[in-house]
Amino acid sequence: MHFSSKLLEQAVEEFGKLPGVGKKTALRLVLHLLKQSKEDVNRFSQAFTQLKEHIKYCQHCFNISDTSTCEICQSVKRDRATICVVEDTRDVMAIENTNQYQGVYHVLGGLISPMDGVGPSDLRIESLIDRVKQGEVKEVILALSATMEGDTTIFYLYRKLQEFDIEISTIARGIAFGGELEYVDEVTLGRSIMTRVPYERKVG
Amino acid sequence: MHFSSKLLEQAVEEFGKLPGVGKKTALRLVLHLLKQSKEDVNRFSQAFTQLKEHIKYCQHCFNISDTSTCEICQSVKRDRATICVVEDTRDVMAIENTNQYQGVYHVLGGLISPMDGVGPSDLRIESLIDRVKQGEVKEVILALSATMEGDTTIFYLYRKLQEFDIEISTIARGIAFGGELEYVDEVTLGRSIMTRVPYERKVG
Repeated sequence: MHFSSKLLEQAVEEFGKLPGVGKKTALRLVLHLLKQSKEDVNRFSQAFTQLKEHIKYCQHCFNISDTSTCEICQSVKRDRATICVVEDTRDVMAIENTNQYQGVYHVLGGLISPMDGVGPSDLRIESLIDRVKQGEVKEVILALSATMEGDTTIFYLYRKLQEFDIEISTIARGIAFGGELEYVDEVTLGRSIMTRVPYERKVG
Repeated sequence: MHFSSKLLEQAVEEFGKLPGVGKKTALRLVLHLLKQSKEDVNRFSQAFTQLKEHIKYCQHCFNISDTSTCEICQSVKRDRATICVVEDTRDVMAIENTNQYQGVYHVLGGLISPMDGVGPSDLRIESLIDRVKQGEVKEVILALSATMEGDTTIFYLYRKLQEFDIEISTIARGIAFGGELEYVDEVTLGRSIMTRVPYERKVG
């Protein structure tokens, strides 16, 4: 791609660094921004520098927060004996949206992934152990993705946590509600059959 | 979506304003940015403010440029008697990539689109007429999209330009090279047949 302006090229390059944004999309977005007013562009840019500069992570669960203790950890309604371990903020939001969970969270900040050079020490695992050590915790729910990295992390956490007198659980895996059998992939379907549950226990 | 941080929400909102970027994508991109170093985020933000602040448009063709006259208009190799009228910078880049065109450009900055409130006066049409009036121009190529807006703009420009002693052409429309007939839409195929050209004139 030949750019008529270095500034334009720079802006396109910066956008293109984002995951899933190619050069053509980046150019389209930059040209869209150029059509906006100077104030709009400034507000756009500042949103990110402000976020990066002033972002805080909750000192308990490490969720993104504007205060040193997040809303969830502050709430008296939440059950501090149950910790749900998740990969990142998006997962907290997804679980909060279900309105099913009343415990607190622990945000790992990633998953163990040797391919990407992410080891256990890069994640907030020690602080999770510290929380468990304090003795208040009764159950740790490992709500991680059903991927290779998720499984590896679950296995690692399980080994670390099993010495404590707590329940360790993972979220249920199987076919999604509303999912038709013929479209479910073989691994999921196979595991669903192997991990079948008695009909009485079914939760609607 | 419930955000655990106002700053996060703001950043996601700003991203979400971009065309084709939904809330989920915006959140994914913002969380990606958050993982970058402070310098990277600053460079990202500044690329856009810098662009908006220092961007120049070529005084002749209105293409985006770092100088008051763009590289193409400065070049002695380009034929100033032929002006290719395009919608925006992306089209200039696309045509330049073909290495087929040796004339100069005129960037309209949009297309006539009553639905979006864009009229002829919002585009750089007067300055095109001015360029033609200077008498050096022999041909104007209308290289606009084959859409309703493109056709409307072509028609408007044709009426404005026909009083001058110049050739007015549009780029050829038809089935794409490598395109298989059965997958071509009916309108394109129908028009391709109506506007068929003698075999001898075919340019490889």
